[in-house]
Amino acid sequence: PMGKEAKLAIGGFLHLQGEWGDAPDARFPVGDRFLVRRARLGVKGSFVEGFDFALTSDFGSNSLGTVSGYRAQITDAYVAWSRFPAATVTVGQFKTPFGYEQLMSGTKHIVIERALVNDQLTLRRQIGAMLSGSVGGPRLTYAAGLFNGNGSNNSANDNDQFTYVGRVAGTWIQTDAGRVSTGINAFTGRDSGSFSGHRRGLGVDLQASYRRLELQAEYLNTCFDRAIGRDYTAEGWSLLGSCVIIPKLLQGVLRYEVYDVDRDLAGDTTELWTVGFNYLIKGDDLKLSFNYLLGDLPGPRAEEGRLISRLQVVF
Amino acid sequence: PMGKEAKLAIGGFLHLQGEWGDAPDARFPVGDRFLVRRARLGVKGSFVEGFDFALTSDFGSNSLGTVSGYRAQITDAYVAWSRFPAATVTVGQFKTPFGYEQLMSGTKHIVIERALVNDQLTLRRQIGAMLSGSVGGPRLTYAAGLFNGNGSNNSANDNDQFTYVGRVAGTWIQTDAGRVSTGINAFTGRDSGSFSGHRRGLGVDLQASYRRLELQAEYLNTCFDRAIGRDYTAEGWSLLGSCVIIPKLLQGVLRYEVYDVDRDLAGDTTELWTVGFNYLIKGDDLKLSFNYLLGDLPGPRAEEGRLISRLQVVF
Amino acid sequence: PMGKEAKLAIGGFLHLQGEWGDAPDARFPVGDRFLVRRARLGVKGSFVEGFDFALTSDFGSNSLGTVSGYRAQITDAYVAWSRFPAATVTVGQFKTPFGYEQLMSGTKHIVIERALVNDQLTLRRQIGAMLSGSVGGPRLTYAAGLFNGNGSNNSANDNDQFTYVGRVAGTWIQTDAGRVSTGINAFTGRDSGSFSGHRRGLGVDLQASYRRLELQAEYLNTCFDRAIGRDYTAEGWSLLGSCVIIPKLLQGVLRYEVYDVDRDLAGDTTELWTVGFNYLIKGDDLKLSFNYLLGDLPGPRAEEGRLISRLQVVF
Repeated sequence: PMGKEAKLAIGGFLHLQGEWGDAPDARFPVGDRFLVRRARLGVKGSFVEGFDFALTSDFGSNSLGTVSGYRAQITDAYVAWSRFPAATVTVGQFKTPFGYEQLMSGTKHIVIERALVNDQLTLRRQIGAMLSGSVGGPRLTYAAGLFNGNGSNNSANDNDQFTYVGRVAGTWIQTDAGRVSTGINAFTGRDSGSFSGHRRGLGVDLQASYRRLELQAEYLNTCFDRAIGRDYTAEGWSLLGSCVIIPKLLQGVLRYEVYDVDRDLAGDTTELWTVGFNYLIKGDDLKLSFNYLLGDLPGPRAEEGRLISRLQVVF
Repeated sequence: PMGKEAKLAIGGFLHLQGEWGDAPDARFPVGDRFLVRRARLGVKGSFVEGFDFALTSDFGSNSLGTVSGYRAQITDAYVAWSRFPAATVTVGQFKTPFGYEQLMSGTKHIVIERALVNDQLTLRRQIGAMLSGSVGGPRLTYAAGLFNGNGSNNSANDNDQFTYVGRVAGTWIQTDAGRVSTGINAFTGRDSGSFSGHRRGLGVDLQASYRRLELQAEYLNTCFDRAIGRDYTAEGWSLLGSCVIIPKLLQGVLRYEVYDVDRDLAGDTTELWTVGFNYLIKGDDLKLSFNYLLGDLPGPRAEEGRLISRLQVVF
Repeated sequence: PMGKEAKLAIGGFLHLQGEWGDAPDARFPVGDRFLVRRARLGVKGSFVEGFDFALTSDFGSNSLGTVSGYRAQITDAYVAWSRFPAATVTVGQFKTPFGYEQLMSGTKHIVIERALVNDQLTLRRQIGAMLSGSVGGPRLTYAAGLFNGNGSNNSANDNDQFTYVGRVAGTWIQTDAGRVSTGINAFTGRDSGSFSGHRRGLGVDLQASYRRLELQAEYLNTCFDRAIGRDYTAEGWSLLGSCVIIPKLLQGVLRYEVYDVDRDLAGDTTELWTVGFNYLIKGDDLKLSFNYLLGDLPGPRAEEGRLISRLQVVF
């Protein structure tokens, strides 16, 4: 470290992917390919004064689409003042508190790709400020923040108005055998950039585990009050179950999800099945995953399948 | 380190910024926003043979304007052979020796943003070679270099001609109570890129400190002999005073500056006041700054104000 | 490291270059310039389970042409499972096993730039998967892989077909006084991107050393069966000799090379001489090289010369 009293750790992870088949939903291109899905590298550190910071970046595709000319871009760049666990202040670029699956690190996912609805209707990383904390032990957590609303790696706020985002989550049962948690989150924001108008999002999620079984459910919905054009509401949900087949070694997963681009229109809904397994060579640090996706896309296209393999290395 | 006998240190800093108000000068957009002003990360090292090197990059906005799609770009990439302090040779990309405030690290500034004239009329980082050193103890320093003249992160030299830059600075008084230093710098270069013609720059600067007070003054001027179109001269100056209010904790600053885009035209001058303070949570390593800028821009616009807050973390 | 049991090393190298003169071949711009030819930084590591990984990136020009707006891009991003030396599996982005000089690290070259034919007819880094190993001790090595065929830092495979690449190399004589090695490599691939059609490449190479002398020879050839337009074959060869003048300090090099863009057309061949020396300040870790290139380009242009100087720092 060049500063005097900061602790500094360097690290990152690689997501190397091979894919075969068609496009089960609109995020994927058609055809076989290899890609560097994510290549993260960065530093995290802390000061004894209660300040933590992170500067991490992605050098890979950082997208499911076809990205050419990968270039390094910040994922996280924030400073958090966490002296009081009940009221941590975070400023910079980081994940907005909206969407359970979005908030979970990509290295902890048990399905290779996030649900379509989660990818489409969350705000991902934004630049802004947030107050968060845990109340009554670690049982209840909250987060509330304001952000430019114009995405990550962008120093513009298109219209002088911020996007407000909040989330409350609680763990209701926690025993040796299992755990039940729920979350609710919402956002509201006015923008005049790639989307022009007023967006309001709402989401609820549930996670439960019992011995070798795990269940995750999430519903998300966003109303787009457009400045020009008809208003519409997009919504979707996903239901994910997993089962440890061999402890610390093999895990099976199954997910069903639905995403409706416009609730008032027929024929624009994607239904998607995912079945797969994770082979934990060394926990999450060295993990090989295979997922088969079968999607029923809108339009005349028949069901389309895709086999995705991912090697994850966390270092 | 992958090489055998180099010492290597990793580090960087974050400048996280929140801004509210209008555009006090042409560098700023109008409106409230958050931005990752700078996100620097890199390595510095040395060989026992007297060679030092640096490779640092910025992952943030690296600009006051509205930058979308931040991408990592080199700030410094140089090797210096510093065996003889009176004659150090530096090659690569680094700051050109022109402009006192420009040469000072962004983490050491006592005002959040550099003076407008310094931003507009200095050459910033360039790719080239430089001879520099200190003569007669650390009292007198000099630097002279030649550079492509086409900016940083650019392997083109548009017209086969180099830009020559030089600076001499001296400290005339240095006691326990205070210090008086001055500098003079100049450059000359012919380019045929974004500017086509012959540019000549000149600058003088003075720094003085006495107990809790500090004063910085700088004047810069550049003659643009354009290949096509009328020649013109831009000039400006800034005067900055600061006062330590609580030692090692709180510092107040006040700056006045003038920038005239074309000396021969009326109505193209910006006048700018800055008032603010720095709260040193942990010296320069963890610093929170607030500046209020009030600018009288050219044209019919009235005075415009902007509140800028910055959190600086050096690691 | 943020993962638990990975060993991690950070490092890289700088290639800072000054050039004077004309363009001896089509890769170079005309005119004097400074450039950051390469600025590599990255991490390499391993797990005790026999997995190695690398994530390295280039922040510099990474090209001989005129690149403006340098941005950080991945060079290597791979994971290799090397538990069995006879069958190592590598996935991610890395160098394709085609072209001896291409496969040699840029820090180990004894001539500043690769031969023109090697730059033009190899596939460089690609995203894919490879099986490689050494058979019968380190005497015989092989590598065979499949890749998107659409270059590095690109998650598209333009046409659902992979490019297949293979190489076999052997060392036939290895004594205290010298060494003789040969290699043969080939590839075949169908693409519909910037090149549309079927490409087939072939190459043979020979390396020999005897006391202070070293010899490298390489021939490469690629047939372009274009989807639209006439098919053609490009080919070329290079012959490089070097001599240690002062052991561990000074080395002289001489290279002659020929590159024919289309074997069936006259007047499209470049002939190129390179003469130079390497001054090893600290082995390859701190090396200063000067090369003079004299090229006879196609067309009416006379022979053109260029002096290239490079400072290499490996850290």
